Amino acid sequence: MARYDRAITVFSPDGHLFQVEYALEAVRKGNAAVGVRGTDNVVLGVEKKSTAKLQDSRTVRKIVNLDDHIALACAGLKADARVLINRARVECQSHRLTVEDPVTVEYITRYIAGLQQKYTQSGGVRPFGLSTLIVGFDPYTGAPSLYQTDPSGTFSAWKANATGRNSNSIREFLEKNYKETSGQETVKLAIRALLEVVESGGKNIEVAVMTKERGLHQLEEAEIDAIVAEIEAEKAAAEAAKKAPPKET
Amino acid sequence: MARYDRAITVFSPDGHLFQVEYALEAVRKGNAAVGVRGTDNVVLGVEKKSTAKLQDSRTVRKIVNLDDHIALACAGLKADARVLINRARVECQSHRLTVEDPVTVEYITRYIAGLQQKYTQSGGVRPFGLSTLIVGFDPYTGAPSLYQTDPSGTFSAWKANATGRNSNSIREFLEKNYKETSGQETVKLAIRALLEVVESGGKNIEVAVMTKERGLHQLEEAEIDAIVAEIEAEKAAAEAAKKAPPKET
Amino acid sequence: MARYDRAITVFSPDGHLFQVEYALEAVRKGNAAVGVRGTDNVVLGVEKKSTAKLQDSRTVRKIVNLDDHIALACAGLKADARVLINRARVECQSHRLTVEDPVTVEYITRYIAGLQQKYTQSGGVRPFGLSTLIVGFDPYTGAPSLYQTDPSGTFSAWKANATGRNSNSIREFLEKNYKETSGQETVKLAIRALLEVVESGGKNIEVAVMTKERGLHQLEEAEIDAIVAEIEAEKAAAEAAKKAPPKET
Amino acid sequence: MARYDRAITVFSPDGHLFQVEYALEAVRKGNAAVGVRGTDNVVLGVEKKSTAKLQDSRTVRKIVNLDDHIALACAGLKADARVLINRARVECQSHRLTVEDPVTVEYITRYIAGLQQKYTQSGGVRPFGLSTLIVGFDPYTGAPSLYQTDPSGTFSAWKANATGRNSNSIREFLEKNYKETSGQETVKLAIRALLEVVESGGKNIEVAVMTKERGLHQLEEAEIDAIVAEIEAEKAAAEAAKKAPPKET
Amino acid sequence: MARYDRAITVFSPDGHLFQVEYALEAVRKGNAAVGVRGTDNVVLGVEKKSTAKLQDSRTVRKIVNLDDHIALACAGLKADARVLINRARVECQSHRLTVEDPVTVEYITRYIAGLQQKYTQSGGVRPFGLSTLIVGFDPYTGAPSLYQTDPSGTFSAWKANATGRNSNSIREFLEKNYKETSGQETVKLAIRALLEVVESGGKNIEVAVMTKERGLHQLEEAEIDAIVAEIEAEKAAAEAAKKAPPKET
Amino acid sequence: MARYDRAITVFSPDGHLFQVEYALEAVRKGNAAVGVRGTDNVVLGVEKKSTAKLQDSRTVRKIVNLDDHIALACAGLKADARVLINRARVECQSHRLTVEDPVTVEYITRYIAGLQQKYTQSGGVRPFGLSTLIVGFDPYTGAPSLYQTDPSGTFSAWKANATGRNSNSIREFLEKNYKETSGQETVKLAIRALLEVVESGGKNIEVAVMTKERGLHQLEEAEIDAIVAEIEAEKAAAEAAKKAPPKET
Amino acid sequence: MARYDRAITVFSPDGHLFQVEYALEAVRKGNAAVGVRGTDNVVLGVEKKSTAKLQDSRTVRKIVNLDDHIALACAGLKADARVLINRARVECQSHRLTVEDPVTVEYITRYIAGLQQKYTQSGGVRPFGLSTLIVGFDPYTGAPSLYQTDPSGTFSAWKANATGRNSNSIREFLEKNYKETSGQETVKLAIRALLEVVESGGKNIEVAVMTKERGLHQLEEAEIDAIVAEIEAEKAAAEAAKKAPPKET
Repeated sequence: MARYDRAITVFSPDGHLFQVEYALEAVRKGNAAVGVRGTDNVVLGVEKKSTAKLQDSRTVRKIVNLDDHIALACAGLKADARVLINRARVECQSHRLTVEDPVTVEYITRYIAGLQQKYTQSGGVRPFGLSTLIVGFDPYTGAPSLYQTDPSGTFSAWKANATGRNSNSIREFLEKNYKETSGQETVKLAIRALLEVVESGGKNIEVAVMTKERGLHQLEEAEIDAIVAEIEAEKAAAEAAKKAPPKET
Repeated sequence: MARYDRAITVFSPDGHLFQVEYALEAVRKGNAAVGVRGTDNVVLGVEKKSTAKLQDSRTVRKIVNLDDHIALACAGLKADARVLINRARVECQSHRLTVEDPVTVEYITRYIAGLQQKYTQSGGVRPFGLSTLIVGFDPYTGAPSLYQTDPSGTFSAWKANATGRNSNSIREFLEKNYKETSGQETVKLAIRALLEVVESGGKNIEVAVMTKERGLHQLEEAEIDAIVAEIEAEKAAAEAAKKAPPKET
Repeated sequence: MARYDRAITVFSPDGHLFQVEYALEAVRKGNAAVGVRGTDNVVLGVEKKSTAKLQDSRTVRKIVNLDDHIALACAGLKADARVLINRARVECQSHRLTVEDPVTVEYITRYIAGLQQKYTQSGGVRPFGLSTLIVGFDPYTGAPSLYQTDPSGTFSAWKANATGRNSNSIREFLEKNYKETSGQETVKLAIRALLEVVESGGKNIEVAVMTKERGLHQLEEAEIDAIVAEIEAEKAAAEAAKKAPPKET
Repeated sequence: MARYDRAITVFSPDGHLFQVEYALEAVRKGNAAVGVRGTDNVVLGVEKKSTAKLQDSRTVRKIVNLDDHIALACAGLKADARVLINRARVECQSHRLTVEDPVTVEYITRYIAGLQQKYTQSGGVRPFGLSTLIVGFDPYTGAPSLYQTDPSGTFSAWKANATGRNSNSIREFLEKNYKETSGQETVKLAIRALLEVVESGGKNIEVAVMTKERGLHQLEEAEIDAIVAEIEAEKAAAEAAKKAPPKET
Repeated sequence: MARYDRAITVFSPDGHLFQVEYALEAVRKGNAAVGVRGTDNVVLGVEKKSTAKLQDSRTVRKIVNLDDHIALACAGLKADARVLINRARVECQSHRLTVEDPVTVEYITRYIAGLQQKYTQSGGVRPFGLSTLIVGFDPYTGAPSLYQTDPSGTFSAWKANATGRNSNSIREFLEKNYKETSGQETVKLAIRALLEVVESGGKNIEVAVMTKERGLHQLEEAEIDAIVAEIEAEKAAAEAAKKAPPKET
Repeated sequence: MARYDRAITVFSPDGHLFQVEYALEAVRKGNAAVGVRGTDNVVLGVEKKSTAKLQDSRTVRKIVNLDDHIALACAGLKADARVLINRARVECQSHRLTVEDPVTVEYITRYIAGLQQKYTQSGGVRPFGLSTLIVGFDPYTGAPSLYQTDPSGTFSAWKANATGRNSNSIREFLEKNYKETSGQETVKLAIRALLEVVESGGKNIEVAVMTKERGLHQLEEAEIDAIVAEIEAEKAAAEAAKKAPPKET
Repeated sequence: MARYDRAITVFSPDGHLFQVEYALEAVRKGNAAVGVRGTDNVVLGVEKKSTAKLQDSRTVRKIVNLDDHIALACAGLKADARVLINRARVECQSHRLTVEDPVTVEYITRYIAGLQQKYTQSGGVRPFGLSTLIVGFDPYTGAPSLYQTDPSGTFSAWKANATGRNSNSIREFLEKNYKETSGQETVKLAIRALLEVVESGGKNIEVAVMTKERGLHQLEEAEIDAIVAEIEAEKAAAEAAKKAPPKET
């Protein structure tokens, strides 16, 4: 059976496309990424690989705009990511030109997932080693949304989700702690989720907030640090509270 | 003999196309789907994978329109499904434009099955890992119909049928219980069939009714819950009846 | 030697094209089909797979028109059949348009067999898993004819022949019992031949008669049942006659 | 060494193209065919496979016209033969159209052999499983000629030759018995040669005579039977003569 | 598992693209290269293979201009390098022609990394065996920058970095010793870094300085020698200082 | 190492292209061919396979014209030869048409060798199994010349050379006996060389003489026989002379 | 690991392209070639394979012009060489036509090396089995130059270099003995270098001198013999001198 996995366009006897599953392994080795949809914003957070000391932090941005109202974070092969991002950006612009309207978040998600699917059904190419989290605001309804795509080309909408390294732990955290939030609370939830699997706090994470009015706002390290501190203070307080005899409300 | 199954365009010594059969395995691993043809409507029901808690239910719709009068449900690889659905939708529109008439249900079924066949005879591509149930009303005769296609590209018309996980059990149920029904009775039959293999009732199924006048109507969870409750009540009554001494009519 | 059979375009050391022979296996697994040429009609009969109880019988038609005066039945992969049938129909129409005359039965047979041959000589495609019986009336001479094609692309003309599951038994029956017949007698011969290998009589067979004047006429189940009953009566009479002392005429 | 024979375009270490040699095996399994050149005619004879009882003899013609003055018989895969024959016929007609003159026998032989060679040097196709005997009259000199081509694409001219099943025995017979003949004597020689390897005489052979004035004339079974009877009478006489004491002349 | 690495477009079960990793080995066998970004200049230095005595030193230049304001050094296969360099130069010129503006350093880095990625996802080609260091000044902001690309098509910005043979040692040196420098100090840092892994000093290294005003300036051997001497003098002084009892400042 | 020889475009570890060498084996199995350049003529001689008794000798001509002033003989696969000869003839004519001058012998030799090389460097085709001897007169200088090409696409000019079966023995003979000759003496030398390896003398060889004035002249069997007789007489005389006591001159 | 070397476009785990290295083996099996750059000329010398006695020496010229001011010698597969030479010549002419200026030596060297690189990165072709030495005068500066290219597509400039059989020995000789020379002295150095590895002196070597004024001048055998004699005389004198007691100057 060992051989079904090397031929790209071939099913294994039990109906698997192994190459797609191996591409998922490349995703699972990638940085953790998290997305949380608030009522008035959508937040993306990604783990920063402890970059070499001399690396120029500008180019390692892992949260990027596809259009003014749409952003993407991803886990997996960085070079593959750039290909998908470029094609998605071109599609956003060409949609504006031909239809004279911005794309919806779902439209561009379908476009990206469609590209990913194509690379799983034809010979001569390998699947993209990439899962994406796509966030944005609908240009018509103004509703925020969060989508995920994976190497098979499947996509789905989420209130909150994670991908990449240790994404299962993050997802479990989110399932336990997700509440519909707004503003800073959404940001805090995303950061708390990331801190579940990222060590040494704020300096190893990158966070961006998409709002309807301001578009994508990449948080400064200081902003992140402040929130991390707040989270830790709350946690400490909570733990102290646990130990202390319960107070009345 | 182990090797005939990896080369896509090759027959095995006993005349099998193994890749097509393996693609069917992908279907058998997919969600259960059921279709029931009434006299005045056609109902599609699919099992919803117990989606992650935070998933946004909108995008997991597995019953989709191809045209106003035609809908499709499917079992198998979701990303493959999107490819087939897109191409079918384009065909529906382009048919309207060129022939100035909507497609018939059979026409679009042939189109979809034809695409599926093509991917079983040429090198360099794998078959679609997908079976579809296609329902609709003939734009000329107004008759409802239900078709099924599979990865080999075969299609056939049915009064009621199922595909995907445990489809054999559903089909057996349908063979025992199918009667020509109309209106709500058809919906109930479809839901009863699904409940044979789907646990925890209404919240894990998705149902849509196609009528000539209203087109496709996706049932709300509440609507489904009501019918499920009704079904369970009837079942309980029936069982009670069984235990109780037979009454006279 | 086991490996010559997997490469499509390769001869084995003893001059075989194994892929063509394996495609014939797919034919041998298909439904039985029979064709009988009468003096004023040609009859095609095929075994109906005991279709699932809920299948809509319309779509399982295995005897189809290629043009007004030409029909085809086949054994093997149904999805492959559709491809051949579509292309043959297009050829019939395009011939009418360009030459302003209908095709002859031999012309369209050559066309179909030519397509089948092409798929046995080039890389990247597999042979069609399909044998066909083609019947029709010559548009110029008005003579009925019956042809057979197979996966190698060979074709030949017949007075009566069979293909698919158990075709050898049917052929033996035909060789013993064929007489030049006309009208209903030809239909009866075809049905008797099919009944050699099909159990439970009329409900599992499909019969169509092509006449010069009426084109293709698909027999109703009732019509078939009547003939089956007649055949069984005759058989019973014959057996009775065998047991009874011979009467004088 | 076993592997050089499966890759079409590859020489074996001792300079063989095995696929071409295996294609020759397909020829050696084909019906016997014989060609004899007379002074005023050229005769082709082929063994008819004892066709199924119900086969319509018209379509099994194995001696066909390429043009009015050129005919061909062949041994090997029938479906391959049709491809070559069609292309040769088109070439004959297109030559008439463009050059306004009929092709010579050598021209069309080169054309056929050239096609056969092409399929031995490129990847993706297999050689034709076919040897041909081509006869005809030169449109300019009026001289009869007989050519043979084989799967490698080689061709050569002959006074008399055979191909297919048991062609060695026929060739030996021809080498012993060939004399330059004319008219009916040439036909008789061809039939005698075939009878060396074909049993049950006239009904299993097909014979056609090409003359300059009449073109190709396919012999009726009765004509063949008459000649076979004549041959057998002569043989009987010869044997009787052998046993009887030699008479004076 | 040994086989996943030979098929270019295939993931291994644990999500690796082995061909890309092997291409990195070709880089690791290449000459060491270093890049250091100063405040007013960017310096590239590469190890010169101890060229054969008779080699004409002009052609072994490993630091080349892509445009007036952009230069590139690389490690890996020299012939591959030329291909990338040519295509990058053409892109620079064609950008000037079409957009009437010079490219930015990031633009051309993306272009080069994009080419490298393409060769990791399609069949029929191998990845480039090449890592590049790209330096330049932004034509708009006037800011110096340093980028690195690798065979996977990934790129990133750096204050200082190294690639090729022993690049890890150089990078460690840089991490310990990097300070923001300007003018000659930047050059000295680059040379000191290279001397960590290159023996016999100045004659085996090639250094070029890019400044905003002067563009790329290749250092003469004499210039390099002078700096090397300076470095060695400083080192000796430092070591002497270490041995001598600490002086007061 | 056994596997380097089956992939056409691949070097073996010691720098061999095995397919080219195997093609040479096909040449070594072909008929012997010899070429001798005289001062006023060039002679080609080839071994005739003892053709089947009934073969028509016209078509087995192995010495053919490419143009009025150029001829070719070859050893190896006959069908491959025809391909090369046809393309060379077309080139000769098209050169006359476009340049309005005949080709030189070297030009057409380069053309043929170029075709042969192409088939050794690209995938999907095998090398030509063919070595050629090309003779002719320069249309400008009037000088005779003799070239040889082989399956690798190499060519070279010769005073006298041989190829095919036993070509080594012929070449040795030529090296011992070659003198610059003219007229009939050149023909005699060529025939003597062939007789070294061809048995039963004149009837198994084919000889043609190219002169500037008469172009190619194929020798009649009688002409060859006369020369063979002359050669044998001389040989006998020489041997007699050897046995006899040396006479004075 | 044995398998990395057969797939053309694939790296081995340690970063090698084996096919390129095997092509170098073909070069190492080729004739020795040497190039020496003088101040006013450039000399190319190649070893002549002890050609068969009857070979016509004209066609074995291994030193050829690419343009009036550029010449090339090479080692490796002769048929491959012709392909490269033809394409380089066409490029030279087409450059003259389009740019109205002759190519520089570096330009055409880049062109040739570029072709060689292309054949190492794409599937379906093998690398050229060829190293070249390219000499010429710059049409603008008038400076002589000598370049070398190899199968990987790398090129470099040299004062003197060698390739092919035993090139290491020649290169060592050159490194010991190279001095900047002019006129006849440069020729003598090249011949002395070749004589290091070529036996039996002048008759097995070919030498050509490129000067700015006269272009390429192929030396006559007599000219070479004279220089060889001179060299041997000097050597004898030198050896005599060594044995004799040192004289005063």
